[in-house]
Amino acid sequence: MQIHRVVRDLVTTKRLGTLQAKKLKVLVDAKGELDVAVDPIGCKPGDYVISIGYSAARIAAGDPRVTTDLTIGGIIDHWSEEEWRK
Amino acid sequence: MQIHRVVRDLVTTKRLGTLQAKKLKVLVDAKGELDVAVDPIGCKPGDYVISIGYSAARIAAGDPRVTTDLTIGGIIDHWSEEEWRK
Amino acid sequence: MQIHRVVRDLVTTKRLGTLQAKKLKVLVDAKGELDVAVDPIGCKPGDYVISIGYSAARIAAGDPRVTTDLTIGGIIDHWSEEEWRK
Amino acid sequence: MQIHRVVRDLVTTKRLGTLQAKKLKVLVDAKGELDVAVDPIGCKPGDYVISIGYSAARIAAGDPRVTTDLTIGGIIDHWSEEEWRK
Amino acid sequence: MQIHRVVRDLVTTKRLGTLQAKKLKVLVDAKGELDVAVDPIGCKPGDYVISIGYSAARIAAGDPRVTTDLTIGGIIDHWSEEEWRK
Repeated sequence: MQIHRVVRDLVTTKRLGTLQAKKLKVLVDAKGELDVAVDPIGCKPGDYVISIGYSAARIAAGDPRVTTDLTIGGIIDHWSEEEWRK
Repeated sequence: MQIHRVVRDLVTTKRLGTLQAKKLKVLVDAKGELDVAVDPIGCKPGDYVISIGYSAARIAAGDPRVTTDLTIGGIIDHWSEEEWRK
Repeated sequence: MQIHRVVRDLVTTKRLGTLQAKKLKVLVDAKGELDVAVDPIGCKPGDYVISIGYSAARIAAGDPRVTTDLTIGGIIDHWSEEEWRK
Repeated sequence: MQIHRVVRDLVTTKRLGTLQAKKLKVLVDAKGELDVAVDPIGCKPGDYVISIGYSAARIAAGDPRVTTDLTIGGIIDHWSEEEWRK
Repeated sequence: MQIHRVVRDLVTTKRLGTLQAKKLKVLVDAKGELDVAVDPIGCKPGDYVISIGYSAARIAAGDPRVTTDLTIGGIIDHWSEEEWRK
């Protein structure tokens, strides 16, 4: 799994039915690269999270028919920007 | 999922039957790298989209027998080149 | 899917039975990195192709028991080195 | 599989039920990039391990319903920082 | 699939039962990055091989319950360091 920081919500009015009405979040990693994940937890911008990829992401979204390849799996208790960079 | 901008249609007259007659689009990411995705939505060049990879791409294409590893999942409501680069 | 140019055939006399007698091709991407794919189409060196990865590659090879993670999915009708680099 | 060094435990009090109560470890690779894995073995910080990714990670976690994409598979008997860098 | 050169055996006395007693090899790619694969063929250091990733790796290992994400698929008949670098 990867360590990501939540940036903001992402709205896609025109989307596939297979994404259902799942909430999407923009995430950023240690290198500044962006990803989009399903958020079944209800994270806030600034939260450091672990994100789950590949086939496990579908199961983590609560229904393996949800067509996501990245899902937030948990909020990290203690993490800081410095720990990320070292 | 990744954030991509739609570049153009891609035509492959000689192709596998397992891709069926699915429309293909060339996508570009924040680094300028190209990918090819099935487009079940009907995007236009310039649209910013989320793309779904791996096994979820097959389900997102509308039929898990479609042999794609990347499928467009939705059009992003508000996105700009600047947001991508920051 | 990725855009690759076909480089040459690859021969592996000593190989797993699960690859069956599938033809293999060396492919190169826009960065000059090499990959090896099953070729169910019969491409020639210099062809620009789309390649299908992950679990979809096994289905695209014509039999999901074929242990490939990359399979050529089609020949691109119109592509040039310049389009790749821009 | 990849070669990783174990950095420390990772605590996520608020997490998905599909991760069960599995222990998580922060891992670092040869380039200094961080990953998070399920640890079914009980590794200590400083151990060099092999990590298993993708769908195999779920099976390696002891239950394919565990939504991990990376699981520690074993502790390497003989490895050093130098061997990693050469 | 990727082109790798075999570096050496890897011993993990403490390992998951799901890796069974499969032989592991350290592999290096064209960039000098290391990976670990199951070796069902019996390769020697210096052999150039094709390696199979993702879900296909489990099938290639001879039993889909083997929790590997990379398995050696064959020894390349004609390959040289120069061909790799060009």
